[in-house]
Amino acid sequence: MSEHADGEELYALAAKLYPMQRSLTGAGVRETFDLLSEYLPLRVCEVATGTPAFDWAVPKEWAVSDGYIADEAGKKIISYKTNPLHVMGYSAPIDAVVSLEELQEHLHSLEGQPEAIPYVTSYYKERWGFCLTHTQRNALKKGAYRVYIDSTLKEGSLTYAELVVPGKRTEEILLSTYVCHPSLANDNCSGIALATFLARWIMSESRNYTYRVVFIPETIGSLVYLSKHMDEMKKRTRAGFVLTCVGDDRCYSFLPSRDGATLADRVAQHVLAAREPGYIAYTYLDRGSDERQYCSPGVDLPVVSIMRTKYGMYPEYHTSLDDLSVISPQGLAGSFAVHKECIGALEHNKIYKTTCVGEPQLGKRGLYPTVSKKGTVGDAQLYLDILAYADGTRDLIDIAKALRVSVSHLFEPIAALEAVQLLKSLD
Amino acid sequence: MSEHADGEELYALAAKLYPMQRSLTGAGVRETFDLLSEYLPLRVCEVATGTPAFDWAVPKEWAVSDGYIADEAGKKIISYKTNPLHVMGYSAPIDAVVSLEELQEHLHSLEGQPEAIPYVTSYYKERWGFCLTHTQRNALKKGAYRVYIDSTLKEGSLTYAELVVPGKRTEEILLSTYVCHPSLANDNCSGIALATFLARWIMSESRNYTYRVVFIPETIGSLVYLSKHMDEMKKRTRAGFVLTCVGDDRCYSFLPSRDGATLADRVAQHVLAAREPGYIAYTYLDRGSDERQYCSPGVDLPVVSIMRTKYGMYPEYHTSLDDLSVISPQGLAGSFAVHKECIGALEHNKIYKTTCVGEPQLGKRGLYPTVSKKGTVGDAQLYLDILAYADGTRDLIDIAKALRVSVSHLFEPIAALEAVQLLKSLD
Amino acid sequence: MSEHADGEELYALAAKLYPMQRSLTGAGVRETFDLLSEYLPLRVCEVATGTPAFDWAVPKEWAVSDGYIADEAGKKIISYKTNPLHVMGYSAPIDAVVSLEELQEHLHSLEGQPEAIPYVTSYYKERWGFCLTHTQRNALKKGAYRVYIDSTLKEGSLTYAELVVPGKRTEEILLSTYVCHPSLANDNCSGIALATFLARWIMSESRNYTYRVVFIPETIGSLVYLSKHMDEMKKRTRAGFVLTCVGDDRCYSFLPSRDGATLADRVAQHVLAAREPGYIAYTYLDRGSDERQYCSPGVDLPVVSIMRTKYGMYPEYHTSLDDLSVISPQGLAGSFAVHKECIGALEHNKIYKTTCVGEPQLGKRGLYPTVSKKGTVGDAQLYLDILAYADGTRDLIDIAKALRVSVSHLFEPIAALEAVQLLKSLD
Repeated sequence: MSEHADGEELYALAAKLYPMQRSLTGAGVRETFDLLSEYLPLRVCEVATGTPAFDWAVPKEWAVSDGYIADEAGKKIISYKTNPLHVMGYSAPIDAVVSLEELQEHLHSLEGQPEAIPYVTSYYKERWGFCLTHTQRNALKKGAYRVYIDSTLKEGSLTYAELVVPGKRTEEILLSTYVCHPSLANDNCSGIALATFLARWIMSESRNYTYRVVFIPETIGSLVYLSKHMDEMKKRTRAGFVLTCVGDDRCYSFLPSRDGATLADRVAQHVLAAREPGYIAYTYLDRGSDERQYCSPGVDLPVVSIMRTKYGMYPEYHTSLDDLSVISPQGLAGSFAVHKECIGALEHNKIYKTTCVGEPQLGKRGLYPTVSKKGTVGDAQLYLDILAYADGTRDLIDIAKALRVSVSHLFEPIAALEAVQLLKSLD
Repeated sequence: MSEHADGEELYALAAKLYPMQRSLTGAGVRETFDLLSEYLPLRVCEVATGTPAFDWAVPKEWAVSDGYIADEAGKKIISYKTNPLHVMGYSAPIDAVVSLEELQEHLHSLEGQPEAIPYVTSYYKERWGFCLTHTQRNALKKGAYRVYIDSTLKEGSLTYAELVVPGKRTEEILLSTYVCHPSLANDNCSGIALATFLARWIMSESRNYTYRVVFIPETIGSLVYLSKHMDEMKKRTRAGFVLTCVGDDRCYSFLPSRDGATLADRVAQHVLAAREPGYIAYTYLDRGSDERQYCSPGVDLPVVSIMRTKYGMYPEYHTSLDDLSVISPQGLAGSFAVHKECIGALEHNKIYKTTCVGEPQLGKRGLYPTVSKKGTVGDAQLYLDILAYADGTRDLIDIAKALRVSVSHLFEPIAALEAVQLLKSLD
Repeated sequence: MSEHADGEELYALAAKLYPMQRSLTGAGVRETFDLLSEYLPLRVCEVATGTPAFDWAVPKEWAVSDGYIADEAGKKIISYKTNPLHVMGYSAPIDAVVSLEELQEHLHSLEGQPEAIPYVTSYYKERWGFCLTHTQRNALKKGAYRVYIDSTLKEGSLTYAELVVPGKRTEEILLSTYVCHPSLANDNCSGIALATFLARWIMSESRNYTYRVVFIPETIGSLVYLSKHMDEMKKRTRAGFVLTCVGDDRCYSFLPSRDGATLADRVAQHVLAAREPGYIAYTYLDRGSDERQYCSPGVDLPVVSIMRTKYGMYPEYHTSLDDLSVISPQGLAGSFAVHKECIGALEHNKIYKTTCVGEPQLGKRGLYPTVSKKGTVGDAQLYLDILAYADGTRDLIDIAKALRVSVSHLFEPIAALEAVQLLKSLD
């Protein structure tokens, strides 16, 4: 399938995900998994409120059906039904008439972005609140306001989904994305769409690694997931990617693992350097998604993020402006291609060793021009360079680095050298 | 006490030290220790002439009471009583009338600094000599000159002083300064004053490390001291500082240990980079004080120097121009503050380890805002960053480096994290 | 002997070598060794056609006595007797009349260098061919051409020569040069002349290392030689140099070993950095001579090349323009001097250790001025610097690097320190 068609499909899925009212828990997440189950054989799991996860516990489940602020004339100034961001995430229910002064304490707006509704949550302390544009807030006049939020916070469960795609090896590649953000397109309808289509592509290819794809609410979800699977993940995971903010087309960004030199770091940096040399390299200090858990001391998984514009670094971030206009088929297609190239590189990334002492005679194997003249050696140089560095200590990424080419540039010549028994892979 | 008041006190002590006629041995050094004993409970030691110290031996003790050159009319052209630098250090006695031609062989002046009396010594070969300004020298007319030096060189002793300030741990921090230079202010009245006030401050603080403070004549003194204490110092010393040329206010300078990566190097470079990023980094090739002995092969102590302008690099160096105008309360106060910060960093420098798997829930411990909105995470980020890097392999300096902050910036948040049992120090 | 006289001698030998019709095998190589045997006690070896050498076998021996293209009028347009490059190396015999169209398939010329006859070979596939200038080729008119090559390809042998100059130690330094190129001056009459005069110089000096000097055809020759000597060479070789393109005076070039950090790399980089800081540093990717075999995985010898302009990087390369005007006595003398300095450095390169704890008293050994005044310390600083870094872990190159001087700058002071027992070499 063309990169163009890929991008359109990814965008279409992101657009379907956009209106769903996701939160840390609840109906929006389940609706999301219902949709994704049309694409993938997901295993959906429910974890009961109160279940411990290291320092945390699964919070109550939140449901909200309506919410508004009405003025004295009964006119609804803002309404959940217009934009779900208007009700603060995990807001407690309220039905009261309050003065403007009291109301102000429960309002959230952004002075610097007066037309944006901010995305605000209060997961771990019960309070009520509304989010609105700063322009809307400034228009509020002294007086009494009806505040109404029809929400519940009660024992329930946290919902996540996973998919394990077995490969020839038990070693795993992790793909992790989060499903807790409501109508924000780049953050993270884009990541969910990418995870879905990467998983479909992986299932369609022959593969060496086993792939673990997880769709979780951010932070508490990865902690819950780790609390169940950490031992096996530590044993098996060779590389992992957190998929987030992969839909815009402004730039590419890289966020390393805490270790900074894992296989995931090496492959991501190599692919980005070859394809997108202008990418922005962040440090682990700039982290902000589930790598915070995956890479924490004692967990130490080799997990990185390849993003387009990093969360927090684009103006629409965590506001109503992060809508479907922020992402594009091109942006998504680029992320898809980069991640596929990383996975391709990982699949091919073996340690290689020449079978020869000294250079082989390429000519008798049809790999070398038999007339030697100025310039001809160039044609076969790549074979000789591969063999020169395939010394049984270097993996494919090392060899590509030594040769200053991209890993994918070596797939074919390596296959040719293996075919004539001049090269073998170890392991 | 304010930095300003510190500077004034340090300067006052340096000013008292300035006129004293110190040399490698003798009355000037003892007078110096009499003064310092008003500030510190020093242990003053005498080591007899001839006592071996590795490749060296304690030289004869030198005493000088007068010295002058007089012209034919009996007029004293230069006199020890005007400036003790006029008599070459360790000059043999002389009482003779010599021609100008013969006299010239015993004179020392600086053509490039015609108004400066140079500081010259001849510790290990007996000869007599005078030092004078080049202008004075040029004014000498052909004729006979009375040369008179009332000095003695005889069996005696070398005098040094030490102070061991015990801490909770037997591991030591070394402070070493030299007391063999006569009326030179920056080199090294400044270092003696700084060592004195650092020792007083250390005694006034609770401390983990034991502190060894030594006041010695340069080179032979450190060799003598090492010949008595090397084994225990090699076992115990975790970091050391040679205090010299710390009184002017032109710049900061760093001279590393031979190893270049000891704890002393790490803490000094960290503190200087944070406080005085324009500091001049010398190499061990530029060494010139007692680190030459402390860092020599087989001794290998972790000793560095943090100076203002390095010895040899300021025009007044080793001349009569290195007077009290070269140093200032501000210059001394800066050196005092930098060394206190190094010591503070060493005292706090433990290896830390988070007690959590994954990130902790800071909110329930009052360390995190409970409403999550754009920007709020910044407030608690420092706690999370510390925990992210506190993996049981990094000490405080490593963590500060990873976080790109100064060590002292972390004292409070680390205490807060320890208080809620999210962090513990190892060892 | 002066560097100037050296250069003249080297050039004179290169000029004698230039007209000889060398190829991979045959009379030209033997003629070359006859000449070199006037300079060196060479051992000349013959290896029979078909003898295996790893992935290769010794090819048939080639002999050629004449070759030309004549036009319909019988006029010889190009002739082997004018320039042996006109007959393609290892060309099969031919005696036929062919059309211009058919002839074209057997011609080699360079469009971009229309006045150059290219150097072309076909060692491993039998075919016939001629090389000519592009101008000559363009002048060919439609018509019939007599093509005549009087050559034979038959069972015979490959000829190489070696010289082992024993030293006090069995560890070896390797010098390798190739003798398979016909009338090309820089590539490689220059290398043969340099190897010859280096060997003569080595024989005239007292030496620690044993020296192995090999004159071989490129590629197949080094493979044949390795197939006989690899085990002992792997055990003994401490450093090696491929001598090629050492005769022009445009620049210096360095080609590292595959490892990049062997003793050969360290000494060559050190000497070049000190003598020729503008030298061009290539990478192992740019390799092109027998280091391809010596450094290949499993062989792993510490072999580098120090060249003037690297093969492939000068316009005359592999054409008739690489004549005696490309090389010069000055160019050859520079290469001779650099290689001698490398060998000198290797001979002196021991691990040193001070015999003192702390600095020694240089004065009592006559190595230090006994009057200490501003500036005097500089005179003895080199002794103290050597002792400061001679800690039993650093070899001479390490010490020179730490001191930022050239190795040869240290020969004398090290001898002086050894003479007074302040320094000793380990091993």
